Amino acid sequence: MTPYEIIAKKRDGHTLTSNEIHYFIREFLKGRVKDYQMTAFLMAVFFRGMNFQETLSLTEAYLHSGKRLDLSDIPIPKIDKHSTGGVGDKVSLVLAPLAASLGLAVPMISGRGLGHTGGTLDKLESIPGFKVNGSLTSFKKQIRSIGVAMFGQTKELVPADRKIYSLRDVTATVNSIPLITASIMSKKLAEGIDGLVLDVKVGNGAVLPDQKQTETLASNMMKVGQAFGKKVVVYLTSMEQPLGLKIGNWLEVQESIECLQGRGPDDLEELVVELTTEMLLLAGLVEKKNTARCNCREALQNGIAFEKMLQLVRAQGGNVQVILHPDNYPLARYYKELKANCNGYLTGFDTHELGLISVALGAGRLQAKEQVDPQAGIILHKKIGDPVKAGDTLLGIQTNRANIWNSIQQRLRAAIKISDKPIQPPRLILKRLAS
Amino acid sequence: MTPYEIIAKKRDGHTLTSNEIHYFIREFLKGRVKDYQMTAFLMAVFFRGMNFQETLSLTEAYLHSGKRLDLSDIPIPKIDKHSTGGVGDKVSLVLAPLAASLGLAVPMISGRGLGHTGGTLDKLESIPGFKVNGSLTSFKKQIRSIGVAMFGQTKELVPADRKIYSLRDVTATVNSIPLITASIMSKKLAEGIDGLVLDVKVGNGAVLPDQKQTETLASNMMKVGQAFGKKVVVYLTSMEQPLGLKIGNWLEVQESIECLQGRGPDDLEELVVELTTEMLLLAGLVEKKNTARCNCREALQNGIAFEKMLQLVRAQGGNVQVILHPDNYPLARYYKELKANCNGYLTGFDTHELGLISVALGAGRLQAKEQVDPQAGIILHKKIGDPVKAGDTLLGIQTNRANIWNSIQQRLRAAIKISDKPIQPPRLILKRLAS
Repeated sequence: MTPYEIIAKKRDGHTLTSNEIHYFIREFLKGRVKDYQMTAFLMAVFFRGMNFQETLSLTEAYLHSGKRLDLSDIPIPKIDKHSTGGVGDKVSLVLAPLAASLGLAVPMISGRGLGHTGGTLDKLESIPGFKVNGSLTSFKKQIRSIGVAMFGQTKELVPADRKIYSLRDVTATVNSIPLITASIMSKKLAEGIDGLVLDVKVGNGAVLPDQKQTETLASNMMKVGQAFGKKVVVYLTSMEQPLGLKIGNWLEVQESIECLQGRGPDDLEELVVELTTEMLLLAGLVEKKNTARCNCREALQNGIAFEKMLQLVRAQGGNVQVILHPDNYPLARYYKELKANCNGYLTGFDTHELGLISVALGAGRLQAKEQVDPQAGIILHKKIGDPVKAGDTLLGIQTNRANIWNSIQQRLRAAIKISDKPIQPPRLILKRLAS
Repeated sequence: MTPYEIIAKKRDGHTLTSNEIHYFIREFLKGRVKDYQMTAFLMAVFFRGMNFQETLSLTEAYLHSGKRLDLSDIPIPKIDKHSTGGVGDKVSLVLAPLAASLGLAVPMISGRGLGHTGGTLDKLESIPGFKVNGSLTSFKKQIRSIGVAMFGQTKELVPADRKIYSLRDVTATVNSIPLITASIMSKKLAEGIDGLVLDVKVGNGAVLPDQKQTETLASNMMKVGQAFGKKVVVYLTSMEQPLGLKIGNWLEVQESIECLQGRGPDDLEELVVELTTEMLLLAGLVEKKNTARCNCREALQNGIAFEKMLQLVRAQGGNVQVILHPDNYPLARYYKELKANCNGYLTGFDTHELGLISVALGAGRLQAKEQVDPQAGIILHKKIGDPVKAGDTLLGIQTNRANIWNSIQQRLRAAIKISDKPIQPPRLILKRLAS
């Protein structure tokens, strides 16, 4: 067995054995499969795909490459949620403290924004002092004490994925179903969870634009989780428009605070409640869906979820005053508004483009090592289905980049569709898959 | 324009512009396109291919990556021959001195053996003292003085190809028509030639096993040559069995000496004469094909081709005594013969497998940096169409590796097909393409 033979075998469309996949990943970590061999292999996988058994072996090989968190001595159910990423998707910021406030342990390892999608770690870091790096020991200690921790991937956790992801990112091999599945599921399995709720985005702001591919990804992730003995529920949810009204790091924290205080936008609250409900049911803490939903709504209303958020921010070194008084947060230097030219109805967004525009404003990054601006972003004033009158504000932007408005304005206008005829807003929750 | 965008564009099956291809190769040589990005790109090209215009741009980008030999002040026609490689293909060893003896300049840059195919440089180096490395200046000086030089690729010549080839070799991206075309044609164009005869091998010992792919390769190479203003003739020739009777480095030099003395095997002489004839016609030195053929045969008979071989060996530091007295060359330690089990006719070889067996005997290499044994190889006693009686020697092997015979014997027997019914030997020259 040589690296060459394994690349050639996948290139020619044959099925790799579990042994071959484990060998290839192991030798890669030892430096005996070179980076340039790995990327040729990844591109061959992009074209040829992997069957379920291969995907499972790849996940296993990733998982075996590092340490796993052992939370078995924490006597409450450990449930996490993962989203495939979108625009304005701040669900984790609300859901993690909410679920913890209702008695779950939420060991959440998150990622950063890249391309048109935002990242939970960047959003959390917009809170002054908030630290997302720490040892597995401190991570576990925090879960034991307050039931929730939100960290970045550590060096010990799934190093194969970390190394391979950084290669995929620069070689156009990110959008491959088996590679996405192994990357996500190995990290989640390494967290030591009992169950997982997956939020797989569909629509023009999703990472995979194709609905059929997205469904394959969803069912693959579910089956991999099940093969490892975990309870998994998958939601397919709409990314035909941004979630909530705000896009950008601090802007999304701000909207999350509103939601944690029971006054968030409807779509955000609906999705947070549904996903947290599934977590409570997976954990067996609540039996009936409606009871779980009520518990969630109550926790958002009565302040216990918000209180958990304050504990979380404090535990990770963040400035709690900012969470208590979000209006004192300093504003970006420039604020501009886009007005409607005509009467009609807002009938669609180019959500992917809105994500890229927020990158241009400073809120995101195109390459892994770029810095992001916590203040920059977009505030929507209208969403799909809303009536629009000429002169109405469609959205506002915040940025610290001078002279950017002229180049952005055209792109923003092109990313919003206004028509004569009214339209029903898209359904938010499209499908539920469960074992 | 970023490396990522170019990889993604090819991955998605779009056509790259000339600018994009030049940029990608230029940035690679500057280290700003990384090896791991190049190999992902190469694998994408393997799957998506390149159209003719892209292939031409790639060849051009390769060619511009280094120096080119300027032979314009040498007042005789500069014509080279290139073969896509096979088993027992020693044509260059005979053709280069023969063509030079008939008034052509032959600036031949050759390669080494890899996998089942042998390499001209390895064969030449079996002559004690023969040097294949030298500067472009000494290369040119030698062509001026004796009309022929046979060197390896220097550092100055087409560095893009050298770097990329070494990556293709370990990432299973060798067998791609545009990549083969650019690699071969850029090197040949860098030699400063006026015309080129290409010998593209077809059949079970060829590098590309598929006939249709092979024809595409042949016509692509011809069109690229023409686009650069060169006269190109392409032959498709059979590699359904080894050429001549001998496979292995010194063994092939020995058979070439026989051929240069007018007593070589028929198939070898036929192919040498046809290809040299085309070179003479391309150069305009002779008008009629039959005259050119006669000139070639005469030069093999009357010793002037052999005399040129002696000049070549002397010029490159080789021991001329070995060429004059080839029977004094030391033998390999072990010699074994494979005998026929039954009566019948030899109806086929697994030529690729014979190439791999000669690697196992020591005559070749599977990886670029391995050493080869000049003495090792195979001597055929029968070829396709020959009658065979039980007990007849089918072939002999020479090797310095002890205890290898048992494992080799089975493989050899399986690589030779003997049937009851006689068969016509395959035609050697299958097709001629010319502008």
